[in-house]
Amino acid sequence: MKLLEDMILEKGKVIDDNILKVNSFINHQVDSKLMKEIGLEFSNYFKNRGITRVFTIESSGIAPAVMTSYELDVPLVILKKQISSTLDDDIYQTKIKSFTKNITYNLTISKDYINSNDRILIIDDFLANGEASKGAIKIIENAGATVVGIGIVIEKSFQNGRNYLDNLGYDVYSLARIKSLKNGKIEFLD
Amino acid sequence: MKLLEDMILEKGKVIDDNILKVNSFINHQVDSKLMKEIGLEFSNYFKNRGITRVFTIESSGIAPAVMTSYELDVPLVILKKQISSTLDDDIYQTKIKSFTKNITYNLTISKDYINSNDRILIIDDFLANGEASKGAIKIIENAGATVVGIGIVIEKSFQNGRNYLDNLGYDVYSLARIKSLKNGKIEFLD
Repeated sequence: MKLLEDMILEKGKVIDDNILKVNSFINHQVDSKLMKEIGLEFSNYFKNRGITRVFTIESSGIAPAVMTSYELDVPLVILKKQISSTLDDDIYQTKIKSFTKNITYNLTISKDYINSNDRILIIDDFLANGEASKGAIKIIENAGATVVGIGIVIEKSFQNGRNYLDNLGYDVYSLARIKSLKNGKIEFLD
Repeated sequence: MKLLEDMILEKGKVIDDNILKVNSFINHQVDSKLMKEIGLEFSNYFKNRGITRVFTIESSGIAPAVMTSYELDVPLVILKKQISSTLDDDIYQTKIKSFTKNITYNLTISKDYINSNDRILIIDDFLANGEASKGAIKIIENAGATVVGIGIVIEKSFQNGRNYLDNLGYDVYSLARIKSLKNGKIEFLD
């Protein structure tokens, strides 16, 4: 997505070989017009596949995901990150590890917002090692529902999340694919 | 807002005299079409006031706030809730207490996304005791910026947040004002 790549080049900050900060337009300050375009792009790619719900993980995925769910005209479900695990028959829960923050979360959803007929699109802001996506997939498949695809705003293609998801046969659509952040330089995959 | 009040009556769950759950269309599952209408309504009320940024607090305020910032054509800034306090010259931080969750957070913003010329609209999903709004106001005013108004999706008018903000002279616009949740019955203010 040209608009997104241009903004990453203009406003992204390379912290080291692995970390790109996009706090000025995606994570902390949010460019809502860009989010609208992202929603249109994901909707365009994933339309006509019988999607019933969009899932995202709190909190940086919410802005692009709400725009996507608006365009697809289906509800958005926000998977909650809980620090402590909860014993409750009314929820599905799975542990995920954030390598960036070095914290383990309990990804949590009420059973009210998923069922075995659901065909779900997962939207997230970043794909690195794929821990968040793996957690969302696990919850969806435990509920007997189908993962139709995964829409990612920025993929760090040099980390192993994309390969992992490709190998399992998921349809991953990333709007910007970063090949390398070496020497402070942002390079995209073609 | 009639559409919102109707959904609250239809889908809201009164847990006790103080707690209304709107997990099926605002907090956990999100009705994006409703969020769009909410964004239009806030934008309509607060337009022509020179707003430069919309602020919200992660994470349930993000969906209505991103729609509002889209309509107003200004950036959204997400105030982060950090568990631990951080000593950093590049941020503003203030403590807020969540009565619902009985946790104290450090509401945090990078100084990059606020300046003394900013005219800011705060958007949040709920107004109860007003702790979150007070925290956001404190951060904004510490930075020398102006709070133009506060847009609330659901106000629990029987708690003291609204009075507190009114007494300080802030323009609070709530889309649904709940007078009482007694005996499991939802009553709105006229």
